[in-house]
Amino acid sequence: MNAIANTPAPPYYAVIFTSLRTELNEGYGQMADRMMELAAQQPGFLGVESVRDELGITVSYWTDLESIRRWKSNVEHLAAQKMGREKWYSSFKTRISKVERDYGL
Amino acid sequence: MNAIANTPAPPYYAVIFTSLRTELNEGYGQMADRMMELAAQQPGFLGVESVRDELGITVSYWTDLESIRRWKSNVEHLAAQKMGREKWYSSFKTRISKVERDYGL
Repeated sequence: MNAIANTPAPPYYAVIFTSLRTELNEGYGQMADRMMELAAQQPGFLGVESVRDELGITVSYWTDLESIRRWKSNVEHLAAQKMGREKWYSSFKTRISKVERDYGL
Repeated sequence: MNAIANTPAPPYYAVIFTSLRTELNEGYGQMADRMMELAAQQPGFLGVESVRDELGITVSYWTDLESIRRWKSNVEHLAAQKMGREKWYSSFKTRISKVERDYGL
């Protein structure tokens, strides 16, 4: 994902997921790719931006809170979240925010 | 900046700055470091997370919209924004958002 998400005019929602990885790599890349693909198929999905160096930041954009709630409770996503907590992330923070204004170049 | 920002309980604000760079590097790294340092000195600043691969994502956290407005109009920051538009960024998007909920590990 090396593009700026083409989001509509605000208001919309952003889920800011910031994480630090463990040293366990097994299955991680495949899961990350699959979650990107799966998120993009969900109702209310507007786009995603993701970068990892040591720190990882993934921001996904959604039309409304209900779409975010549904995505959080998606069965395949729930399994990935469980693996994330148990194996792949040493720490993370998820922040649900409402985009009120945007501008750019 | 390779840490997850230690933000207080919501609500607070997040400025999500996503950018693509040009190939002009002169002065860029120094400016980026200086803006991080300067932002951290501003009233209302709560923390920042930043990663760049090809895409860059920097999320800064603030207590309120007025603090964000003041930071945007900081004289040294204005000069950096001008250089950013003219030289360093081929495109960017700035999104001002209100963090309503967070959780983590």
